[in-house]
Amino acid sequence: MAKQDDQFKKVISHAKEYGYIFQSSEIYDGLSAVYDYAQNGAELKKNIRDYWWKAMVQMHENIVGIDAAILMHPTTWKASGHVDAFNDPLIDNKDSKKRYRADVLVEDYREKIVQKIDKDIEKAKKRFGDAFNEEEFRATNPNVLRRQKQIDEISAELARVQEENDLEGFRQLIIDLGIVDPVSGTKNWTEVKQFNLMFGTQLGASAESSTKVYLRPETAQGIFVNFLNVQKTGRMKIPFGIAQTGKAFRNEIVARQFIFRQREFEQMEMQFFVKPGTQKEWYEQWKETRLKWHLSLGMGAENYRFHDHDKLAHYADAAADIEFNFPFGFKELEGIHSRTDFDLSQHEEYSGKKLRYYDNETKESYIPYVVETSIGLDRMFLAVFSNSLVEEELTDGTTRTVLRLPAVLAPTKAAVLPLVEKDGLPEIARKIMDDLKWDFNMVYEEGKDSIGRRYRRQDAAGTPFCITVDHETKDDHMVTIRHRDTMEQQRVKIEEVRGIIAKEVDMRTWLMNM
Amino acid sequence: MAKQDDQFKKVISHAKEYGYIFQSSEIYDGLSAVYDYAQNGAELKKNIRDYWWKAMVQMHENIVGIDAAILMHPTTWKASGHVDAFNDPLIDNKDSKKRYRADVLVEDYREKIVQKIDKDIEKAKKRFGDAFNEEEFRATNPNVLRRQKQIDEISAELARVQEENDLEGFRQLIIDLGIVDPVSGTKNWTEVKQFNLMFGTQLGASAESSTKVYLRPETAQGIFVNFLNVQKTGRMKIPFGIAQTGKAFRNEIVARQFIFRQREFEQMEMQFFVKPGTQKEWYEQWKETRLKWHLSLGMGAENYRFHDHDKLAHYADAAADIEFNFPFGFKELEGIHSRTDFDLSQHEEYSGKKLRYYDNETKESYIPYVVETSIGLDRMFLAVFSNSLVEEELTDGTTRTVLRLPAVLAPTKAAVLPLVEKDGLPEIARKIMDDLKWDFNMVYEEGKDSIGRRYRRQDAAGTPFCITVDHETKDDHMVTIRHRDTMEQQRVKIEEVRGIIAKEVDMRTWLMNM
Repeated sequence: MAKQDDQFKKVISHAKEYGYIFQSSEIYDGLSAVYDYAQNGAELKKNIRDYWWKAMVQMHENIVGIDAAILMHPTTWKASGHVDAFNDPLIDNKDSKKRYRADVLVEDYREKIVQKIDKDIEKAKKRFGDAFNEEEFRATNPNVLRRQKQIDEISAELARVQEENDLEGFRQLIIDLGIVDPVSGTKNWTEVKQFNLMFGTQLGASAESSTKVYLRPETAQGIFVNFLNVQKTGRMKIPFGIAQTGKAFRNEIVARQFIFRQREFEQMEMQFFVKPGTQKEWYEQWKETRLKWHLSLGMGAENYRFHDHDKLAHYADAAADIEFNFPFGFKELEGIHSRTDFDLSQHEEYSGKKLRYYDNETKESYIPYVVETSIGLDRMFLAVFSNSLVEEELTDGTTRTVLRLPAVLAPTKAAVLPLVEKDGLPEIARKIMDDLKWDFNMVYEEGKDSIGRRYRRQDAAGTPFCITVDHETKDDHMVTIRHRDTMEQQRVKIEEVRGIIAKEVDMRTWLMNM
Repeated sequence: MAKQDDQFKKVISHAKEYGYIFQSSEIYDGLSAVYDYAQNGAELKKNIRDYWWKAMVQMHENIVGIDAAILMHPTTWKASGHVDAFNDPLIDNKDSKKRYRADVLVEDYREKIVQKIDKDIEKAKKRFGDAFNEEEFRATNPNVLRRQKQIDEISAELARVQEENDLEGFRQLIIDLGIVDPVSGTKNWTEVKQFNLMFGTQLGASAESSTKVYLRPETAQGIFVNFLNVQKTGRMKIPFGIAQTGKAFRNEIVARQFIFRQREFEQMEMQFFVKPGTQKEWYEQWKETRLKWHLSLGMGAENYRFHDHDKLAHYADAAADIEFNFPFGFKELEGIHSRTDFDLSQHEEYSGKKLRYYDNETKESYIPYVVETSIGLDRMFLAVFSNSLVEEELTDGTTRTVLRLPAVLAPTKAAVLPLVEKDGLPEIARKIMDDLKWDFNMVYEEGKDSIGRRYRRQDAAGTPFCITVDHETKDDHMVTIRHRDTMEQQRVKIEEVRGIIAKEVDMRTWLMNM
């Protein structure tokens, strides 16, 4: 656990130091759970978005992309269920006046018991050495057994009150467990209330004509309300998909873990419209296709796993997460959901407009079923960034920090470095730069630092290639290409450089791995 | 005027019919002044954004891009002046309970007088025929002279009350002119009040800890608050720029003209940080560079003009608009502003943090001056789209509708069309499609429609190329490339197709025109 925390802290500080992510409005001490993408972060984020868009929209003839507004007609959120049911259970402590998520208070309490068991095991390990058998210990040690029973009871009751939306039961559970407010230290709790996670605002100026609208809490509904317009003007035939990337907003009470759970975040979603009855096949197929997309980036198959949902949301008949091995453990990165005809039916009901697909061949008309793939762009960013950051021990005993971003996603593809700031080397380097910058994001760096030091800085910044111009370049028109991951150096003709970089950063090559 | 209105209506209906722009949440009868970009619109918008980004960020070594959040610390908007001064003067009619922008009521009233003069002139034209001299008529006709005097008086008084923020004067002007509410028909007006255009929302859940925050009304401040972090982590040397594209929100009371003035819109902004004293040079240079960017798209130099501001905002020491010839006349498309050190100084004052640049060579430290280029992405979309939509008379007497989008921006680069749906032609066409879709956005279309009809549909959709596979293709491995603008047809080898398209749609080629 401590080691994970350390690694996560490194990720956060490296993201700032190398211009990937800043706290939002940092000069004003930040805005909680909101972050800004800095000069390198903005490019990495853009590249991830483009990689998704290319794979989903450009590669699939039957998927088109749209860009719906963040502000939508408020009835949209009545129909989707968000006005009534997109809530967190909150509880206040009357002494500290602090507000908490009731479920998180219970989960944190349960987590402490888990940690106690871990400690017991640690101790026993030390005492018994090699003779220690954890499984047996867990099955027989009375302390551990008692604690595990407690954990199971808490989990069962938490599941029940969540399932039944039993707010009084929530409060009772907190009181029964004797949970105290970490600030005031008291058990002086209010009732539990539901708090809607949507941000509201007023559209229009006059008291009579202004309308309460919401910042969308998900991008999916922008696709559903446009479904028929897109299908008709785009002459789409089922099965077909509509994809979208864009911002969504949730007024999270507990927003932790850096960019993993933000109040403002970006989604990359695709809704695939299918004939009722075929949704299970498509669901399986999209699970597979999306996992392949992730694997194409080469970040290690062992870092991904499926988590099939046992309990399904009311609109779903199947659902799974693709979980990624983040610095804080395996967590949801992407969701694949078989959403049935729930959303379109709801919008039919609330709008009074038919949202049916007419099949020209069978002459039938029906509400399609929907299979959704939904990935958080910020989470994907964190997955890529944290997975890439490595402290490497070198053969000479020193270490280097290297950000092994997949080259196709790296913000800067190559740095052009004249060995010294004289003897005409900057002029040659600049010519190479001016030629290549049409095709790739490049940086040019002179400076008095040694070439080794400049290489290390580019390693840490995630730049896959350095192109070094030295004195020999003037005679042989060759440069040194130095590879970030292998540290290998290669002497090549200037005119070969473009091809070498292109081969490594071309989206086609990467997507071919799918 | 009527002709312009007609053309504008055509633009709006064509944008819907061909999947460019839908009204937001149309099934719920729309949300006022908010629009969704449909399957072709999303691609066109993305391409415009990329064209700007490539020209501004990738081509300029000393410009980097960031992606700051929409939600910012609220003190940002105190410092920028938006909390206190980003207002519209509003007035209510007590009978209709409707609210209006006071300045727009006056402007509409004045516009009616302009229209009366136009009518007088029309009448006189008819009466006098060829002998009519408009200039002389304007200078001598007593009716016209009286009306022109009235217009000038209104303009002068409107300018005064706006300048002096004289709210009582605003009301008096409306009463003096006898302006009646178009709904109730009465003159029963309230006082004029200032209404802030920022959308507000609450961040956090508890009454004690929640904060009023705003949806940013401009993206610029996201750059200013990050200025020093970017400069330091990016080792930027003055002069340098920070660019950004992103959403901004304004609660416009009068939101008209389709996507020209929306409540939710996207900006593409660049703030260029320079040494104090050099801002005028940079201002002139950026005016020139930005106009060149526009001209590179080949939409006609006569459709652009500069409008230098006489009256400057409090933060500016020079400002100009690039105006474009929209269907409703010349209007602001982009602004270039020399913003002095106003914003950074304000943020220094409000944050208590130094926002100084340290010049390593001169060993001086100073607050940089800023030259800004700011363009509305939605406006640029409207400029491109409306300028491209043409009804063309052909030599055979028929007409065709063609959307002459610059090929570099077109959502779909080419359509692959088998002449008939049999004889193996679809298979060949699909092979071409599968090969080219890695590089370009493509569509594949079979269908029973004649090839001529399919060409026309692609013309109207804005697709620059059609690639037709016919029976001869099986023998000679050649296809017909048909060009949208010239309607020229060219017989080429299949393997030449990629190069022909690439040449016309490559950003490099287009930006080389700058």
